[in-house]
Amino acid sequence: MPSDIPRSFASDNNAGVHPELLAAIAAANDGHVLAYGDDPFTARAVEAFRSHLGPGVEVFFVFNGTGANVLGIQAVTRPHEAVICADLAHINVDECGAPERFSGSKLLGVPAPGGKVTPAAVAERLHGIGVQHHVQPRVVSISQSSEYGTVYTPGEVRELAAFAHDNGLLLHMDGARIANAAAALDLPLRAVTADAGVDVLTFGGTKNGLLGGEAVVFFDPALAAEFRFIRKQGMQLASKMRFVAAQFDALLRTDLWLRNARHANAMARRLGLGLGAIPDVTLTQPVEANAVFAVLPRRAIAPLQGESYFHVWDEPRNEVRLMCSFDTTADDVDRFVAAAARHVRAG
Amino acid sequence: MPSDIPRSFASDNNAGVHPELLAAIAAANDGHVLAYGDDPFTARAVEAFRSHLGPGVEVFFVFNGTGANVLGIQAVTRPHEAVICADLAHINVDECGAPERFSGSKLLGVPAPGGKVTPAAVAERLHGIGVQHHVQPRVVSISQSSEYGTVYTPGEVRELAAFAHDNGLLLHMDGARIANAAAALDLPLRAVTADAGVDVLTFGGTKNGLLGGEAVVFFDPALAAEFRFIRKQGMQLASKMRFVAAQFDALLRTDLWLRNARHANAMARRLGLGLGAIPDVTLTQPVEANAVFAVLPRRAIAPLQGESYFHVWDEPRNEVRLMCSFDTTADDVDRFVAAAARHVRAG
Amino acid sequence: MPSDIPRSFASDNNAGVHPELLAAIAAANDGHVLAYGDDPFTARAVEAFRSHLGPGVEVFFVFNGTGANVLGIQAVTRPHEAVICADLAHINVDECGAPERFSGSKLLGVPAPGGKVTPAAVAERLHGIGVQHHVQPRVVSISQSSEYGTVYTPGEVRELAAFAHDNGLLLHMDGARIANAAAALDLPLRAVTADAGVDVLTFGGTKNGLLGGEAVVFFDPALAAEFRFIRKQGMQLASKMRFVAAQFDALLRTDLWLRNARHANAMARRLGLGLGAIPDVTLTQPVEANAVFAVLPRRAIAPLQGESYFHVWDEPRNEVRLMCSFDTTADDVDRFVAAAARHVRAG
Amino acid sequence: MPSDIPRSFASDNNAGVHPELLAAIAAANDGHVLAYGDDPFTARAVEAFRSHLGPGVEVFFVFNGTGANVLGIQAVTRPHEAVICADLAHINVDECGAPERFSGSKLLGVPAPGGKVTPAAVAERLHGIGVQHHVQPRVVSISQSSEYGTVYTPGEVRELAAFAHDNGLLLHMDGARIANAAAALDLPLRAVTADAGVDVLTFGGTKNGLLGGEAVVFFDPALAAEFRFIRKQGMQLASKMRFVAAQFDALLRTDLWLRNARHANAMARRLGLGLGAIPDVTLTQPVEANAVFAVLPRRAIAPLQGESYFHVWDEPRNEVRLMCSFDTTADDVDRFVAAAARHVRAG
Repeated sequence: MPSDIPRSFASDNNAGVHPELLAAIAAANDGHVLAYGDDPFTARAVEAFRSHLGPGVEVFFVFNGTGANVLGIQAVTRPHEAVICADLAHINVDECGAPERFSGSKLLGVPAPGGKVTPAAVAERLHGIGVQHHVQPRVVSISQSSEYGTVYTPGEVRELAAFAHDNGLLLHMDGARIANAAAALDLPLRAVTADAGVDVLTFGGTKNGLLGGEAVVFFDPALAAEFRFIRKQGMQLASKMRFVAAQFDALLRTDLWLRNARHANAMARRLGLGLGAIPDVTLTQPVEANAVFAVLPRRAIAPLQGESYFHVWDEPRNEVRLMCSFDTTADDVDRFVAAAARHVRAG
Repeated sequence: MPSDIPRSFASDNNAGVHPELLAAIAAANDGHVLAYGDDPFTARAVEAFRSHLGPGVEVFFVFNGTGANVLGIQAVTRPHEAVICADLAHINVDECGAPERFSGSKLLGVPAPGGKVTPAAVAERLHGIGVQHHVQPRVVSISQSSEYGTVYTPGEVRELAAFAHDNGLLLHMDGARIANAAAALDLPLRAVTADAGVDVLTFGGTKNGLLGGEAVVFFDPALAAEFRFIRKQGMQLASKMRFVAAQFDALLRTDLWLRNARHANAMARRLGLGLGAIPDVTLTQPVEANAVFAVLPRRAIAPLQGESYFHVWDEPRNEVRLMCSFDTTADDVDRFVAAAARHVRAG
Repeated sequence: MPSDIPRSFASDNNAGVHPELLAAIAAANDGHVLAYGDDPFTARAVEAFRSHLGPGVEVFFVFNGTGANVLGIQAVTRPHEAVICADLAHINVDECGAPERFSGSKLLGVPAPGGKVTPAAVAERLHGIGVQHHVQPRVVSISQSSEYGTVYTPGEVRELAAFAHDNGLLLHMDGARIANAAAALDLPLRAVTADAGVDVLTFGGTKNGLLGGEAVVFFDPALAAEFRFIRKQGMQLASKMRFVAAQFDALLRTDLWLRNARHANAMARRLGLGLGAIPDVTLTQPVEANAVFAVLPRRAIAPLQGESYFHVWDEPRNEVRLMCSFDTTADDVDRFVAAAARHVRAG
Repeated sequence: MPSDIPRSFASDNNAGVHPELLAAIAAANDGHVLAYGDDPFTARAVEAFRSHLGPGVEVFFVFNGTGANVLGIQAVTRPHEAVICADLAHINVDECGAPERFSGSKLLGVPAPGGKVTPAAVAERLHGIGVQHHVQPRVVSISQSSEYGTVYTPGEVRELAAFAHDNGLLLHMDGARIANAAAALDLPLRAVTADAGVDVLTFGGTKNGLLGGEAVVFFDPALAAEFRFIRKQGMQLASKMRFVAAQFDALLRTDLWLRNARHANAMARRLGLGLGAIPDVTLTQPVEANAVFAVLPRRAIAPLQGESYFHVWDEPRNEVRLMCSFDTTADDVDRFVAAAARHVRAG
């Protein structure tokens, strides 16, 4: 039907399914297997995860990022405990209150210039410990890559993990774009997760080319002991799980996860360079992963959206967010940059 | 990989994806569209639903049956209100407490011989109305077809709906197998839903051949006013929703929904006839949709499971449940019946 | 104001405050103390509890029975775990769904003729263990004395506790009328609690003469580790806690708890004997604590309620419930019995 | 027992019960009345409220302030809706996450210098309206008097109410110290509540001399339609409600509410004047109700706490909070000021 719909920069989930992953789905569509994860595809995909993240990790497939974040947090908290995260964290502003609603835990937002939480910011929230009137911090949650498209270095994650652990907290990573981060750092997936002290990881698949599917990864199996029940009660247990698993298996047994992420990142760099060269356009964040944040003259925004839709991030500042995905082409980028230049000049 | 895995009768979700639906996914995998349902595929699929169920229905796609049931119920209840359902209802026994956990509403189980709730059974629970110590019944929930594979006639649904409405209650239908029920009755989908007074419907897709996806249908749009938020907060909002929608569109624009359901039902009839003819095997429920319930000699059960896995429904009674799906073949059935006869004789 | 309001048999919480407890409140009303339990009255009352129940118990004061039951259960469960209790248990029918709403845990009702749960009835619910689709039983909850005014013997409690522990469950006791039970058995409070294997106890005060106040008692301190936070978040932390504590201290340092309970029980026995002797009146439960259940001719019920209000327990059976309290007098009983005889004869 | 415990300035709930209110409890302790609010004391107390706040208000008694705030908010929100309040609001920082946990609603904190929320601050949070990814603001909650002891004028409340209503929001007032606010303004209770556009009010009793008890007041009865069930399920329904009611009746039928509040306020003014006159002590907030906030030299704080305990409000700033209550005496104040002066000089 919509073969003439242009690729957009609105979000990396506006893309479809990578052809290799669609092929993996088709290949898995053979005969009957037990439902709910008791199938060979799921076992095989878990092994693929372990080859990247360590032999002892526990891996659970869920439907989407909200489910992965909420249930991963619920697994390691009690309702009177709290999660410290960036003010602008996806879990804090873009999940319609799901984390508080289902885990019961209060989110404590901290300022995170550039999108990254620091130990100093976390420390500001560590008061009232042991006092019954106050929620008790239990988890620090960070997004890798961040909501601003920036990337925590392994050292930064390690420092946060050490600080968290020293204070009796766990480190949760919302890795909806973990592949983009690893690609940006040119490091294996475990370098910024297992090896850096992360305790619970949302491993994103959808934004890296899957039809749909995320994984919750526990680096300490003890934290996962009850997760099967939490996932089922949390409405995130797929009956035909083989089709989520088969995609992750195809993503991780090859270098597809890396190819997709590298490509999206490269397109973002190209887009950033192009936009940054336009007079009156200012990039507001370093382009480290697959996002570009830029301030445009107000008059240029609506006409440019008319050609290719994207989201305004900060209305008063005229700051927009542009996301690249595995299927963004250099031609898409160049046409967008040209259109932007045209609308900026037209003002 | 597992091309030699035999088809089983353990559940109708052990099947894979119907080829026409996989083709619909592939056809939708073209370019970029907005995420979260603001895409033409979703709009088109909603129209397909309306052509079956009425022009005024509101339709929302979700990931799975638990999500559809829980959020559909949450949309029309407050936490101090209760849901009357069969003791053995899927929502009451097979969803790990998700309905109570997320809607807050208590489930009040009633006996339902043959799987079907009656007005008289509901009436038994209508006490304590207006008394602050007691939860207040607000919804009657029935499963169509039922957990025992039986089918409510339009008259039975109408009677339940009238009774519910007369008592200030709404009627929810868990239609995980609504297509099988309509096929069994040889009636249009609306005959046992919209036309029979159902207020909220879980419209099952996964068990009728989808890769994954269910719909929550509200026959009174006023009930749906806040559902977008409930779905998002309920962790059931798919980012790449076009792929759920495209499957439903393909299912409902053609007669695929009916072909799949009729076939599964026919296979169950064949299975029922075959098993029922074996001495010492007793069918315990009429075979109306795609399920067969039978009591087997205990000694025969494990060996038969060893050949083709299925679930024991009632351990003490030696009652087993066998489900047929869109891809069950006559040969599958005949081989299973032959194996059953062999193991029964072998005792 | 209402000095002419007659004492009624509607509930043991229709009584007021025992004068000695009101005096204890007045005596505690002296100067300033820290709020929220960090006061000497609370410390002293906890010691009074320990002298009865064991030096290692952890004791927390809350406002009411619903709060005590719900939070005590929440402390020892996760939301996917379940509580097995009598079908007619107060937590199951008279708390407006609070246990499910706040603990998340599903209640699994079992038949309990005479109000008492048996290991055999619990065993019926122990299936699906480890299966992710099903809630996982974690607690058995019993009421002592029961909703039918019957009393578990220490042996019965021990047997239930042993069965529970053998199956990985904990035993919760709703002791809203624990004093009546101990008085009925003529045993110390610990004989049917600590010594019988109870893990979590709701210790009732209000129905034994307090203005208001209950205690949650944990016999294993490890279970209480987070309870201060659960109580606060559960809206059950009294700021002026000294006044709840002072009452419990007065109740338990003297034999007032026992005097009150013995008196109420004795009045119930007198009432049972009186009513049982009326032709056409049948007692339906043995009178062991402070409750009398009786079937009356239907025509007699409303006129008798008109003289002295009480609740119909089972409408179709014409069964009524009559409760005696610490301040019920022999004269109250005798007048009621006379009135009952009159109305029964009048039919 | 503790007749030598000095009065402290730690909190206005460190005081006991006002003698007139204890007398009211004793006077209500006469015979039997129906439990759970179906008694003449409760009816009479509700009338007392109506005489102050308007004939149409609905009034419900609960145990404590957390219960009143949480359940009042729950009554008017759905879980995907949000509450805008001051960053430092009691509901946001001092209730251990109870509002989010039980209402499901997210709290959106806004800066409130001096403790008071402004329409401009609320407006900053009114984005994402109608967008399914974001919680939907439904309530503005303010504290009167505020956590800083400041008082909203009727004009300020009216302006907030008008702004809220214009934007489809309701105005909730946490009136734990509503009497202190009215006394400070020298206005009737309704002037800053009903007449100023408040929709839901927590009417504080405990901090104004009650043994314990708060009221939830709905100015539009339609908002209260389901509150009886919410209160019961919310574990805040007192069985012997007459004793809460009798206190409120005594408080509001006389001018006791006003005498208590005026006295506490006067003592705070005296304390503020005394402390403010000490060199090196700086008051940080105007003393409008019964709180004094002051910065002291760090070296003076611990020794002064040793004489009379109080809370440090802002550790890094050396800011302390001092609360006066109905029974604070001029002598208490003068001795505290003298001690403060001594410890400041001693540095």
